[in-house]
Amino acid sequence: MPRFRLTLEYDGRPFMGWQMQDHGPSVQGAIEAAIQRITGLNASVIGAGRTDSGVHARGQVAHVDLDTPLTPFRLGEALNYHLRTDEATPGAVAVLDCTLADEAFHARFSAIYRTYQYRIVNRRAPLTHARGLAWHVIQPLDAAAMHAAAQSLVGQHDFTTFRSVHCQSRSPVKTLGEIRVTQEGEAILVDVGARSFLHHQVRSMVGCLKLVGDGSWTADDLQAALAARDRAALGLNAPPDGLYFMRVDYA
Amino acid sequence: MPRFRLTLEYDGRPFMGWQMQDHGPSVQGAIEAAIQRITGLNASVIGAGRTDSGVHARGQVAHVDLDTPLTPFRLGEALNYHLRTDEATPGAVAVLDCTLADEAFHARFSAIYRTYQYRIVNRRAPLTHARGLAWHVIQPLDAAAMHAAAQSLVGQHDFTTFRSVHCQSRSPVKTLGEIRVTQEGEAILVDVGARSFLHHQVRSMVGCLKLVGDGSWTADDLQAALAARDRAALGLNAPPDGLYFMRVDYA
Repeated sequence: MPRFRLTLEYDGRPFMGWQMQDHGPSVQGAIEAAIQRITGLNASVIGAGRTDSGVHARGQVAHVDLDTPLTPFRLGEALNYHLRTDEATPGAVAVLDCTLADEAFHARFSAIYRTYQYRIVNRRAPLTHARGLAWHVIQPLDAAAMHAAAQSLVGQHDFTTFRSVHCQSRSPVKTLGEIRVTQEGEAILVDVGARSFLHHQVRSMVGCLKLVGDGSWTADDLQAALAARDRAALGLNAPPDGLYFMRVDYA
Repeated sequence: MPRFRLTLEYDGRPFMGWQMQDHGPSVQGAIEAAIQRITGLNASVIGAGRTDSGVHARGQVAHVDLDTPLTPFRLGEALNYHLRTDEATPGAVAVLDCTLADEAFHARFSAIYRTYQYRIVNRRAPLTHARGLAWHVIQPLDAAAMHAAAQSLVGQHDFTTFRSVHCQSRSPVKTLGEIRVTQEGEAILVDVGARSFLHHQVRSMVGCLKLVGDGSWTADDLQAALAARDRAALGLNAPPDGLYFMRVDYA
């Protein structure tokens, strides 16, 4: 049976998250409903990462096995048509790319590197176009200080401080490949990459970096929070609004 | 009586345009309603440009005369509070700056230069986050060809071809100061500046540049359309979604 690989963009605002939920729309549910309308099949779509409620994607990757004669191009076009006209969440999900994958390809388990971007808008005035698409921070932030402090997080650490109590990962030890904080006008962007992340790890790291940026914390405070290996040492968890799942790399 | 100068950002999607309308919400109406709630006064807010339905702003300028003891900072903060909690269009307008202006200052008549940006997203997949915030063009566009052709529009011309039938300007002769077409990933940005524009001029120029970009028109076709001085020679009018009023300069 053909395995299809999908690259997905979505606006997280109307969703309870990636994973199918009883109590509200999910990205996975929207795609599976579109597949059902196109092929009549009840298929399971497996994503590289289970993004939370309100979290966005510009390059989530998923796979799905479908006994269909449709070419990948036709399937992608049909999915986009049905996602655009979906009754519950019209236009919130788009298929950027649809290809045939090898049967050994698994969107989640074959992934070797994941990249997220966290977007802060740093200004006094409320957001208009960017409502729900960025974290609005009023206090002036020092992006250079945030970048410098963030480098202590790179490498292999026990990230218990930056881990949600709901995290299902077997170990709190992860290897952060890179973290870059840059400024573009009133936007401050935090780009992070790793093989995998703990639940809430990016939002928790960004929340603490915000405290460094506004002068509440020193770089030493951030290192002490990491060293504490204790969720109680977390300074702040950033809201989902600014988080984008950007890219997944495979071997 | 103090004259206040407001710099405004707005999401044009929920509005019938800048100007007060009987048949739907306007940006002017939202700001005047907020002023009424703050001061009890019925004031007229005058904008530098009357943007159309669905058109956005990142730097519209307006003035308003208000017999109030509020400082400009307090007025700006109060406006943002009431605009954010507006019942009809919550969070769609933000005051970026509020200052006291000289009584000789007039947001519309004192303006000497206006800058707009038009945003195209050039890709096959439908838009998600950018729905209503950019023009989605599927056919691959050649931004360099668009930029080169656009230069024939710079300077003083009779822009009748690029003028709406509803335009109220006395003369169709305008001086285009600059036009730049640049590419940033999948986005194509058209930045234009002039002392003033005809109604629909930016959208009409961008519509024709899209035809150059997709190969339907040559640079000569664009020049011929301009030379025709005839609305019937217009190739295409771009939708409001991608248009942003960016900045107003005063002497």
